[in-house]
Amino acid sequence: MLTKIAEFGKDPAGGETRFLYTAEWLQAQNFVGEIMQAAGFELKFDDIGNVYGRVHGMKYTDETILTGSHIDTVRNGGIYDGQYGIVASFLAINYLKEMHGDPLRNLEVVSLAEEEGSRFLYAFWGSKNLCAIAKKENVEKLVDANGTTFVNAMNSHGFRFRDESIPMRNDLVGFLEIHIEQGKVLETEKKEIGVVSAIAGQRRFNIEVFGESNHAGTTPMGLRRDAVHTMSLMINYISNAALKYGDPLVATIGKIVVQPNVANVVPGYALFTLDTRHPDEKVLSAFTSEIFVELEKIATLRNTSVKIEKWMEALPVQMNKTMIATLENACKTNGFSYKMMHSGAGHDSMIIAPFVPTAMLFVPSAKGISHSPEEFTEIEYLDKGILTLAEALYRLAYFD
Amino acid sequence: MLTKIAEFGKDPAGGETRFLYTAEWLQAQNFVGEIMQAAGFELKFDDIGNVYGRVHGMKYTDETILTGSHIDTVRNGGIYDGQYGIVASFLAINYLKEMHGDPLRNLEVVSLAEEEGSRFLYAFWGSKNLCAIAKKENVEKLVDANGTTFVNAMNSHGFRFRDESIPMRNDLVGFLEIHIEQGKVLETEKKEIGVVSAIAGQRRFNIEVFGESNHAGTTPMGLRRDAVHTMSLMINYISNAALKYGDPLVATIGKIVVQPNVANVVPGYALFTLDTRHPDEKVLSAFTSEIFVELEKIATLRNTSVKIEKWMEALPVQMNKTMIATLENACKTNGFSYKMMHSGAGHDSMIIAPFVPTAMLFVPSAKGISHSPEEFTEIEYLDKGILTLAEALYRLAYFD
Repeated sequence: MLTKIAEFGKDPAGGETRFLYTAEWLQAQNFVGEIMQAAGFELKFDDIGNVYGRVHGMKYTDETILTGSHIDTVRNGGIYDGQYGIVASFLAINYLKEMHGDPLRNLEVVSLAEEEGSRFLYAFWGSKNLCAIAKKENVEKLVDANGTTFVNAMNSHGFRFRDESIPMRNDLVGFLEIHIEQGKVLETEKKEIGVVSAIAGQRRFNIEVFGESNHAGTTPMGLRRDAVHTMSLMINYISNAALKYGDPLVATIGKIVVQPNVANVVPGYALFTLDTRHPDEKVLSAFTSEIFVELEKIATLRNTSVKIEKWMEALPVQMNKTMIATLENACKTNGFSYKMMHSGAGHDSMIIAPFVPTAMLFVPSAKGISHSPEEFTEIEYLDKGILTLAEALYRLAYFD
Repeated sequence: MLTKIAEFGKDPAGGETRFLYTAEWLQAQNFVGEIMQAAGFELKFDDIGNVYGRVHGMKYTDETILTGSHIDTVRNGGIYDGQYGIVASFLAINYLKEMHGDPLRNLEVVSLAEEEGSRFLYAFWGSKNLCAIAKKENVEKLVDANGTTFVNAMNSHGFRFRDESIPMRNDLVGFLEIHIEQGKVLETEKKEIGVVSAIAGQRRFNIEVFGESNHAGTTPMGLRRDAVHTMSLMINYISNAALKYGDPLVATIGKIVVQPNVANVVPGYALFTLDTRHPDEKVLSAFTSEIFVELEKIATLRNTSVKIEKWMEALPVQMNKTMIATLENACKTNGFSYKMMHSGAGHDSMIIAPFVPTAMLFVPSAKGISHSPEEFTEIEYLDKGILTLAEALYRLAYFD
């Protein structure tokens, strides 16, 4: 089923490119819908294109356990990120239905329309609509790289904005998402399953260093105000400070811009980005405050100056303790090794968690690779993930 | 005269852009020629467009003291780099002629066609032709940014390749060049004149660091092979090592390229350039050998690898000791403060020095700025430079 979905959006340049509201995206959503309908699930598309497949509960008909993930991919992505969560959810519920008959509570799969923000500069469109927090005003001016507006792309497939006066559905009593880890912690620690306790908060900054451009031959070392030398001291300091703080704190200098960026000129300007994440907001605050004091000192010491600008902040999101316990017990019942861990990446679960008791499962990513055609998870781990999800859903939907 | 030359090639975007074999370049060369002719100098264009103005010697008619610099500029350059050397040479000789009559040896100004390599990727075209070492084969395939070939540009103004079977002229017994410093050593040390003892050798390298690209959120610090962190350690090490070696060694990291260069990906690849210079080749060799051993160690320590590639090497060029002494004595006679120094930048003098006893004078550059519309030297220093040059030429051409 994963490889079948992968046919919709196969990219000649490698991997999958399945952007929101494209023909291949609609084919994939329709395919997911058909599979579920064929298995007897009740099919529903919502206004914006999320697809739901429900198995009705016999007793608590106004209580629904939802499970799923997103159908869209990044450009040249893999066949697991998002898609595995949808397939696993369907297979788990289908398995339960065949093994145990109808549940007491409704069991429902969701194939969320969008999470990556790859076509339009807006992420989590699917889960934000599910939670009735997506706003028309935030997307109606968006245009993709080809000049197509968000609204035209959406309307072209018969979808439309949700009626914002209608509140979020109130039947959801639990949400579970299973996803590839996208890191190599499980692989390194040889664990079969990751139980996610929290999704890390993150902050991103531009850090600019101002020095003075000079001739590389005629300016003695002692007379330089070299922005790149200052930047290097800062990057070292930050990387070492993050190592010293220890896991799960991470700090990444991912992007560097130097001016004038020619071999024979002492650089007068350098910009680097800092992306730092931790599941505890207090630790993140302490870390950034601490390093920014030191960056100022380094700049001054090197006769340069620094400007720090935050351009992104996402608060950490804790998973629901009862749901976490259910997932742990599911691992134990199945006899699978697992690790309690946080997610360093953002997921639909972090949008849904404030509204519905939510938890997440990870399966190992080979070499930690994701967002790449080389994304891979062993079939054995895919199966164990589905069995763990099934066991958890069984506990949630089949008992009083 | 400087501001008059500056009218040829005034760039709407700022400063001067006077590239080889452009209309404005020809206007400037013609203007220099007319001025010299009007003052009674014997005018000569050579095949490729160097302009010479000679005052004949009365006694040693087969001995010529040459002085001058280049007429071309970089894009958006200043009005001093090169041009000042031509104007100063003319004014110095004209002054001597009026004060002391005809010299014993020929005195000759040269306005060299090209030094910067800004239009075509070939520098020192003027002085290399003067020394009969320019080769047709090295330029005939060159094309400028607009697609004009070197040959067409040259021919369009009536110039042509030198006959390579004819050896270099054999009348030159001395060459002096006066130039702006392009650094801030003289300004910092409050000296009026720089007497150049050597032109630094230089080597340029690309240093590539290979690590592993990873997700910024899901890869713990300890599992990273971060090319940017490794690069920072290397840049720090190099900068500190250069400071420790002390003047006149310089080492510049001018250019950085990071891949994939996005905020939320641990960079798997980084490239930086190293430009290092010293007037003593042995010191330069020792320095680069020493740091490259250490760069390998740093790469290994950080679980990354490094590849170092040299793409440019220029040997140091020593100025002639007798000519240096003449310049020093000229400073002393005039009562001007001076500093014996090396040049970190390349100049026509380094091409001519192997063939003719050569030395150079510097005048201070305000704030060390050059290759910029803000290039500036106080008129007082320009005058003192001319007087020093005149005194040196007097000693060289008016005595037995």
